[in-house]
Amino acid sequence: MNETIDVLMSHMSIRKFTEQQIEGDKLHQVIKAAQWTPTSSHFQAFTIIHIKDAQKREAMAEIAGGQKWVKDSPVFLVFCADLYRAEKYWKDADKRIFSNQEMFIVATVDAALAAQKAYIAAESLGLGGVFVGGIRNNLGAVSELLKLPQLVYPIFGMCLGYPAENPGQKPRLPIDVIYKIDQYDDQQDNALVALYDREVKEYYLNRTNGKIQDTWSERCGGFMMEKTRADVSGFIKEKGLNLI
Amino acid sequence: MNETIDVLMSHMSIRKFTEQQIEGDKLHQVIKAAQWTPTSSHFQAFTIIHIKDAQKREAMAEIAGGQKWVKDSPVFLVFCADLYRAEKYWKDADKRIFSNQEMFIVATVDAALAAQKAYIAAESLGLGGVFVGGIRNNLGAVSELLKLPQLVYPIFGMCLGYPAENPGQKPRLPIDVIYKIDQYDDQQDNALVALYDREVKEYYLNRTNGKIQDTWSERCGGFMMEKTRADVSGFIKEKGLNLI
Repeated sequence: MNETIDVLMSHMSIRKFTEQQIEGDKLHQVIKAAQWTPTSSHFQAFTIIHIKDAQKREAMAEIAGGQKWVKDSPVFLVFCADLYRAEKYWKDADKRIFSNQEMFIVATVDAALAAQKAYIAAESLGLGGVFVGGIRNNLGAVSELLKLPQLVYPIFGMCLGYPAENPGQKPRLPIDVIYKIDQYDDQQDNALVALYDREVKEYYLNRTNGKIQDTWSERCGGFMMEKTRADVSGFIKEKGLNLI
Repeated sequence: MNETIDVLMSHMSIRKFTEQQIEGDKLHQVIKAAQWTPTSSHFQAFTIIHIKDAQKREAMAEIAGGQKWVKDSPVFLVFCADLYRAEKYWKDADKRIFSNQEMFIVATVDAALAAQKAYIAAESLGLGGVFVGGIRNNLGAVSELLKLPQLVYPIFGMCLGYPAENPGQKPRLPIDVIYKIDQYDDQQDNALVALYDREVKEYYLNRTNGKIQDTWSERCGGFMMEKTRADVSGFIKEKGLNLI
């Protein structure tokens, strides 16, 4: 164990923040950490937009389904996959390729890797926060608010601030379910997921004084049905991404 | 600054490794770190496959375009976006939704976030490595080797081991290019990218004794044209992903 492993292992989502603002040098370290992400072929196909404007924050909170921490957190960042910069600057590139599935994956992964580094930097500095996929409820509206050009799509937001809660850690799927040797072998998964389902149910029972008693399998199914986000595909194609 | 920020800021890709194997408990910490990733709606829609089999490693190195570190690194992991588990376990979910763009993004991001945590854990433990997107040269072959079921796709590999080189850090795009306030404003980007292009050219001139003298814009364009990977889209659709 070391200090970094400690940070990595103590992750929990924070949605309540103290009034304390994030110091400029700390925020700078968070963004610098993202800047130093590993990136496919040195492409760096991502852009971070820091939403300071109060009206935009309010609109984003609404888009995200009324998540008030999107409005209230000291810092709210939006991570975008960005091939607009690529189209603008990369020499001798066949522009049709920016619209293919491969480049869509490249940019999506680049942005996610950058976000994870920013988030871990924040956690190491005593900050906490939460990823907000809820902005995908209405990507068109987000794009308009942030004036996103073609070939850029916002993947998720991230709230950051000093934690004013300690919600505890949600149990994770057993290692042997998410980690396999040499091939995808799920023979043991039924038994392990059944155990895990009981663990998650117990966790919710304790945390909510018996109000919630869902297993993981029940909860994920429910969450997915709430968030079908059928418009995501159309928006991404409108932006010229993932067409071929 | 703290120890974690230090780890985050000193990233470099490592492709040459000593003979020393990764201790079991260190590898365990790497996988545990991935297990504790933030994940969309607690979905945990990713699977890590550790390739130990020598023949599979050789085949993967070939698929990746002859990257011999894929064969030779002490550890080689493949990170997969995984909705097969979701389809198998999640209660009352409309199975068509697993094929939509939204769920494709969710699973891709989950896997990338997990990978970044594993990678940072490894770096903090004195290990190094490199992400290998080259496996996307032939996803069909990778899928066959790893016996991947429907709704699972391999995004990238990751080599890990004790570094036997110190390649130095490649300069990153200036902060003001990748980080914007309130909206996507690229008015300053031309000037900043021009400066960066010169910095990258200088970096290659120094590192390769004048053999390479590409700017960032030139190099990215070239890389992209080498890696069109037009088959990725077809493979992903065959797996039942990103259809709608």
